[in-house]
Amino acid sequence: MEPLQVLPVPGLGEVTTGVELGALLDDAADAAGTPLAAGDCLVVTQKIVSKAEGRVVPLASDDPAARRRLIEAESVRLLRRRDELFITQTPHGFVCANAGVDQSNVDPGHAALLPLDADRSARRIRDALRGRGIEVAVVITDTFGRAWRNGLTDVAIGVAGLAAIVDLRGTSDASGRELAVTEVAIGDEVASAAELVMGKDRDVPAAIVRGLPGEWFRESSVRELVRAARDDLFR
Amino acid sequence: MEPLQVLPVPGLGEVTTGVELGALLDDAADAAGTPLAAGDCLVVTQKIVSKAEGRVVPLASDDPAARRRLIEAESVRLLRRRDELFITQTPHGFVCANAGVDQSNVDPGHAALLPLDADRSARRIRDALRGRGIEVAVVITDTFGRAWRNGLTDVAIGVAGLAAIVDLRGTSDASGRELAVTEVAIGDEVASAAELVMGKDRDVPAAIVRGLPGEWFRESSVRELVRAARDDLFR
Repeated sequence: MEPLQVLPVPGLGEVTTGVELGALLDDAADAAGTPLAAGDCLVVTQKIVSKAEGRVVPLASDDPAARRRLIEAESVRLLRRRDELFITQTPHGFVCANAGVDQSNVDPGHAALLPLDADRSARRIRDALRGRGIEVAVVITDTFGRAWRNGLTDVAIGVAGLAAIVDLRGTSDASGRELAVTEVAIGDEVASAAELVMGKDRDVPAAIVRGLPGEWFRESSVRELVRAARDDLFR
Repeated sequence: MEPLQVLPVPGLGEVTTGVELGALLDDAADAAGTPLAAGDCLVVTQKIVSKAEGRVVPLASDDPAARRRLIEAESVRLLRRRDELFITQTPHGFVCANAGVDQSNVDPGHAALLPLDADRSARRIRDALRGRGIEVAVVITDTFGRAWRNGLTDVAIGVAGLAAIVDLRGTSDASGRELAVTEVAIGDEVASAAELVMGKDRDVPAAIVRGLPGEWFRESSVRELVRAARDDLFR
């Protein structure tokens, strides 16, 4: 295996509805002295994607009833509730807190919603960069909680050009024994790696993951990562 | 934020009971041309820790009853069962498949068990390296499934010298709004980043994560990552 590099992409400034994120990110990477290169995976946080796509709505910070209505509108199913924490399933199939409705890092009196289709968002950024002559993969990430473990991790909510899951079943381990099941959630691991340079309290909404194996670059969808409700033992 | 590097540590060879992993890993990193340096986080997979600590037991591959007894002995609670897949809680508080009992990458007719106390395993490696004059953090990892999402990711099962969780609550986001809850599972994200250079089908049982912020280095325990059953909505 080759070494990996994880490079922060800071300095995007405020992102507004309708901006071309691909161009903005390409220029920011140039300005940071780490221009995008073929074979990179560009990791972009949900918040700036939602802003660029106009997925920001008014929501007063002191109106829990309005917040509940918004979370309900963004959900297809409520799994659990504890006080004002709602664990729901979104139309994308994600299970997360408050359907992704998030009032941090947006204008006061507003909330960001998840992109309608973050695979499409990722493809749009990938295609814009392709138009600039740079072939990269793109992963859109958000910060989710988990069952059983404290703390949040970043996971993939959209992918373009990178396998969300790499299936090592049927390959052999180092001692020649066939591995029974080893489907690795590459998309989520790339998201988590990128998060390490994108601390929540800093203005770094994107990162470059450089050095991923060439065989992981293929057409893909975040749907690979979404477990169907019928296969899930915890829903 | 500084860039991160994730460097594979290959070439350990077969690990046997009683070997001093710290020395072995230090030498392997040297041989790979990427010697350990102060401020590194050394990430070590569970399998070689279990082998070094003698946590490998006989288990025929065609004896499901013996396997079930072993899983039961390694568990304090069964959460779900589907056929021969058991989701249990281990004495450490981890929720994972088959209590971590794993027959891949061990001698035929054997199974590896989780280390009894992987925080202690991590401290032992950290202290051995300290004895060699190198001050690093150590994270022991294993590959776990999750609720709701397909695919496995590596997570921390033991830590020494690195915050398992970084609490950004009370700090401000880029727009000055106070962040309500942002406890980031740094230990798990470091584990996932390392896994990207430690593919299951290759003989790379460790990696160096270089460039983590200095303020994340502190005494810690994987217990920070273990959600208490009473706080868990999915148990």
